[in-house]
Amino acid sequence: MRRMSDGVEAALHCALVLSGLPENKVLAGKHLAELHGVSESYLLKHLRALTAADVIIAVPGPRGGYRLAHIPQQITLLDIVEAIDGKEPAFICREIRRRAPGKSQDSCNYKRDCFIKSRMLAAEQLWRNALHSQTVADLMQDGEQQISPSSKLLVSDYLNLHAR
Amino acid sequence: MRRMSDGVEAALHCALVLSGLPENKVLAGKHLAELHGVSESYLLKHLRALTAADVIIAVPGPRGGYRLAHIPQQITLLDIVEAIDGKEPAFICREIRRRAPGKSQDSCNYKRDCFIKSRMLAAEQLWRNALHSQTVADLMQDGEQQISPSSKLLVSDYLNLHAR
Repeated sequence: MRRMSDGVEAALHCALVLSGLPENKVLAGKHLAELHGVSESYLLKHLRALTAADVIIAVPGPRGGYRLAHIPQQITLLDIVEAIDGKEPAFICREIRRRAPGKSQDSCNYKRDCFIKSRMLAAEQLWRNALHSQTVADLMQDGEQQISPSSKLLVSDYLNLHAR
Repeated sequence: MRRMSDGVEAALHCALVLSGLPENKVLAGKHLAELHGVSESYLLKHLRALTAADVIIAVPGPRGGYRLAHIPQQITLLDIVEAIDGKEPAFICREIRRRAPGKSQDSCNYKRDCFIKSRMLAAEQLWRNALHSQTVADLMQDGEQQISPSSKLLVSDYLNLHAR
């Protein structure tokens, strides 16, 4: 499979961190960047994409920042991945089947999708369905179970200090 | 999902065409290119990748060409896709979870994969499994049912003329 944008990893981690904010609080881009060890300019590009896709809300102004646009149960992993990498299919059919010398060019003969396209799109739909069936709430539950107590404390202290 | 190489479509169609060759016959790269309406130089790059991945065999010499390296039932769609696009995972984990200020750098604290990585890799594994469960023989069966009689005749005439 083609490599995803590395922004996907950052976006998923950002969504998880933002899920830990108290209601109506936001976290500034510079703090999200610091928490994830990436540059603010790098992260801003991806935060803009998440905002455009209605995954997060950008509150402007000197006391502004980001928060989730919906409750964690309503933000799927697919929403986040597609915000960064787009919704286009991975497999592109260029209708190679029509190109052999002598092949009919009448589109009535090609009403049905090429079966190669159908099989390829069906396979990637399984990936998409899997990501659609998981939400930020699942990540929160994983975090609850798998992040060490000291790491949890570190992040919650950071949020308490910087949320606004 | 990130767009695949457009060589994937060409490679899948080439494998299907080669499955129609009489036993021990080959088809030259220039004829595979002509049948698919692509340039020979473009296709050669992908035929080399398919050869390196043991999907097809390249028979050298002036009477040379390509044939499938295995029976159609033993060549999966995943073999073909990975020959062109590689076997690397799409999601790359850069261990962002370790980067927050103050986070432990002791790798003993990160023995288990990040749960975000686990969920992302599990999703793409569904795509991989689907492609692994389908073979060139399935494409042959689709072709039998869905390609029009006139198109079938056109390709089989072409193969009779150019197979060697």
